[in-house]
Amino acid sequence: MAGPVLALVGATGAVGTVMVDILNGRKSWPWGEVRLIASPRSAGKKITVRGEELTVLALAPEVFDGVDVAMFDVPDEVSAHWAPIAAERGAVAVDNSGAFRMDDDVPLVVPEVNNDKVGARPRGIISNPNCTTLSMMASLGALHREFELKELVVASYQAASGAGQDGIDRLYAEYAAVAGKEVGNRAGDVREALAAAGLSQEDSPFPAPLALNVVPWAGSLKADGWASEELKVRNEARKILGIPDLKVSATCVRVPVVTTHSLAVHATFAREVTVEQAHAIFAAQPSIVLVDDPANGQFPTPADVVGGDPTYVGRVRQALDFPNTLDFFVCGDNLRKGAALNTYEIAETIAAAL
Amino acid sequence: MAGPVLALVGATGAVGTVMVDILNGRKSWPWGEVRLIASPRSAGKKITVRGEELTVLALAPEVFDGVDVAMFDVPDEVSAHWAPIAAERGAVAVDNSGAFRMDDDVPLVVPEVNNDKVGARPRGIISNPNCTTLSMMASLGALHREFELKELVVASYQAASGAGQDGIDRLYAEYAAVAGKEVGNRAGDVREALAAAGLSQEDSPFPAPLALNVVPWAGSLKADGWASEELKVRNEARKILGIPDLKVSATCVRVPVVTTHSLAVHATFAREVTVEQAHAIFAAQPSIVLVDDPANGQFPTPADVVGGDPTYVGRVRQALDFPNTLDFFVCGDNLRKGAALNTYEIAETIAAAL
Repeated sequence: MAGPVLALVGATGAVGTVMVDILNGRKSWPWGEVRLIASPRSAGKKITVRGEELTVLALAPEVFDGVDVAMFDVPDEVSAHWAPIAAERGAVAVDNSGAFRMDDDVPLVVPEVNNDKVGARPRGIISNPNCTTLSMMASLGALHREFELKELVVASYQAASGAGQDGIDRLYAEYAAVAGKEVGNRAGDVREALAAAGLSQEDSPFPAPLALNVVPWAGSLKADGWASEELKVRNEARKILGIPDLKVSATCVRVPVVTTHSLAVHATFAREVTVEQAHAIFAAQPSIVLVDDPANGQFPTPADVVGGDPTYVGRVRQALDFPNTLDFFVCGDNLRKGAALNTYEIAETIAAAL
Repeated sequence: MAGPVLALVGATGAVGTVMVDILNGRKSWPWGEVRLIASPRSAGKKITVRGEELTVLALAPEVFDGVDVAMFDVPDEVSAHWAPIAAERGAVAVDNSGAFRMDDDVPLVVPEVNNDKVGARPRGIISNPNCTTLSMMASLGALHREFELKELVVASYQAASGAGQDGIDRLYAEYAAVAGKEVGNRAGDVREALAAAGLSQEDSPFPAPLALNVVPWAGSLKADGWASEELKVRNEARKILGIPDLKVSATCVRVPVVTTHSLAVHATFAREVTVEQAHAIFAAQPSIVLVDDPANGQFPTPADVVGGDPTYVGRVRQALDFPNTLDFFVCGDNLRKGAALNTYEIAETIAAAL
């Protein structure tokens, strides 16, 4: 069979399912073979890729034999164990977990920002950024090239699917439990409605109710009260943009949205940047859609952009009191550009250089 | 009848209804008489205040005769017309609309921050701040007294009830329309579900679907792409805190929460401030509840704080890269402290000085 071999590890998860959609939708197709891989529990399942019914294989060292690029959409600990095995067997591992992102000898790549880093991969592993960071990298990368980014204050509006299929299922279950009930007017009444429907908080991937609520927490607790997700935004943005001293403060908040992360971005540059300049730069990026006409009710919202490949940017304003600073709002599908799409774009870049 | 006379204009609206709850729940009671006032449409309705059934009066100049303090919870244009009439008839008008807030001769008051401004009211009008600004004034005022606030970057998570009873009704109707449907995975499917249920976007107080969505817009369009709500946060914060050159950037976003606004605050001070110092200051404020123990899943969320009088503060962190800067998260019931309670506290202050 002509062409390189592509493997997808985690083919049956939330991101893996979107990845299959992406494989099915691509116009150009460099691959000679696709292997779908998952845990033994999901092995044997049939999934159709580009008209061909494939049987999901159980994760094992041998499945990587002959693979050129292995994409990993699995939890950190699974990637930490299996990506090096795939690399040992000769594949380039493109990993969407947090296991390797901050390792010095693992490039962290957003193709439209630092595609030049794909070639240097001493361990045979390339990392895909966290979905929250990724949602703003195309827009910030484009502005940084012109105006030199110095400072970033970010607040996120993160979707339930950032916590995987469990997150999606939980959000729907919570809404089924509160539907038709006029709750949200008294402290604890949302919790009571969930409990009455048999939904215990302990079983949730979120640390508080998400229906009719927002939850200022994502990830695990790190030093000094920071959530891991907030530090990822800081550290990954620095690495991807190549600005080791970038000043970053992030507050990560989960919102009752199924899919698509949004970010309120306050970005300060070395040089003055006008709204017109920023609009021109955003409009020129193939992976950005500019939606910025509030007079006609036009700005990005998750419900309008979910399922798309680009990131959507709007509400661009010059800060009134901060020099060289823009405020804007970004929406990006966290399962597509925020995860599967970016991983696939890296895989495609590798295939093109084989 | 002993004691001053209190009037409540807009007694049957979303904020007015909460105000009646507040009147019924106060321990001390300085008033000799309460008059409930509303549009002619709602006049004649019976509402019980502290055990006494009152008949809602139709708004007219005569109803203010003999009134000492008249609280206005009505739209801007109604306040603009009627608050001066109440003042002419001898009442002090305490207005919760945006009609007078930025007028130089109208004090803008948050009792725990600038109660000393209540006395100087040349026009007989005192303004209550916008609910979004108010949600963070107690915490920022307390920190400012110690450390001198210089800069503020804020992103909001604003509840549907900020748009009044129409906003609440719309959010519930939208959730009834999407309940049981697995929407939010494809651009436009939330809009389709709402349309299928007969909910037209034109009839909504929000410019986009709010169910399973976030909407980066609140208020009307002002110069250079700013939303009126974002400028209110800047201008009112400057006036209340008495910092005319305070640097402020705000991004206001509506979220599918019934009641309680949340804010991600990034605040820079003239002097260094530690998390321990901030915790001590917040804990010492009677109107602030500190909820900041993420190791045990403790941080404020709207579902846990709605219906309460205090503002809740958590997620307090020293910014890693910005000197003298704290990041924190605040939740405040936008109908209580954000509106009715603050208005009532001003009215009570006036009564005490009569």
